[in-house]
Amino acid sequence: MSLSAEEVSAACAEPDPSTADFIMQQTMYRIKDPKASLNFYTRVLGMRLLKKFDFPEAKFSLYFMGYEAKEDIPTDEKERTKWCFSRRATIELTHNWGTESDPDFKGYHNGNSDPRGFGHIGLAVPDVEAACERFEKLGVKFVKKPNEGRMKGLAFVQDPDGYWIEILNGGNLTAM
Amino acid sequence: MSLSAEEVSAACAEPDPSTADFIMQQTMYRIKDPKASLNFYTRVLGMRLLKKFDFPEAKFSLYFMGYEAKEDIPTDEKERTKWCFSRRATIELTHNWGTESDPDFKGYHNGNSDPRGFGHIGLAVPDVEAACERFEKLGVKFVKKPNEGRMKGLAFVQDPDGYWIEILNGGNLTAM
Repeated sequence: MSLSAEEVSAACAEPDPSTADFIMQQTMYRIKDPKASLNFYTRVLGMRLLKKFDFPEAKFSLYFMGYEAKEDIPTDEKERTKWCFSRRATIELTHNWGTESDPDFKGYHNGNSDPRGFGHIGLAVPDVEAACERFEKLGVKFVKKPNEGRMKGLAFVQDPDGYWIEILNGGNLTAM
Repeated sequence: MSLSAEEVSAACAEPDPSTADFIMQQTMYRIKDPKASLNFYTRVLGMRLLKKFDFPEAKFSLYFMGYEAKEDIPTDEKERTKWCFSRRATIELTHNWGTESDPDFKGYHNGNSDPRGFGHIGLAVPDVEAACERFEKLGVKFVKKPNEGRMKGLAFVQDPDGYWIEILNGGNLTAM
């Protein structure tokens, strides 16, 4: 059942003062092929690569992506690391080396079929229709186009690994 | 393998001007019991409930959580909806009604065992040690304490559904 307003109030607390400077910094998921993902997240979605980290011993790399201005990215690598981790709302793409060329690699699980859990990330955009027309031209795979289904005005696309990305605009959703 | 600097450059594009106002708005995952999650995300992590949406026909509710100031939350509900979807870095918790009291519900999949995919969200905090000491006192479940493992100075805790939440500080990670 839905919680009543009273149940919501009872379940929520005012934030503890010690959490005042916490920020929601990253959402991490695993990717098969960083070439495909870098292309998609920059060229299609308009993010930038904020910082790449390599861990040769454990054979993986991390690619932090986000909506940040080019001129804000520090040139000094230590400064860039610190800056990267001070940014809100980054996407951390984890690449375990070898998956990109392993014929036996079955791909990652996007969480929207059993066993379910994670659902999607979501981007707010000024014009959902225009954004989706551009995505179509770029060959992006759609789970739901803006005019399909019951929820008009929002869309779901898929990244190269099949993760779902909602494309939304708050102005369209005031009926929710 | 790790991509070379040249391969990274070749894979990345400068953002298209039409994406200039895109924002990374939400990360969605499913939860079993909103009472437990609201308590955890507000009392423990210090977020606020930005907006709750009920969908009685489809029997689910959405709880948007985030680090926002109380005085910024509009009182008008339509304004609040629009505002909520203009916030960056929110967590969208999806509650399918009934799971909270269904003895046969097996729980959600956190993506860190097979089939893998999603990994975690991550919070940047001013003091990882202090944050984790407080979490311990509050009975939070740890996957990794700050001084365990190879990656010193960062921790992973679990929310009520078992999703992983990294607790990090960029200043600790400049060796990465």
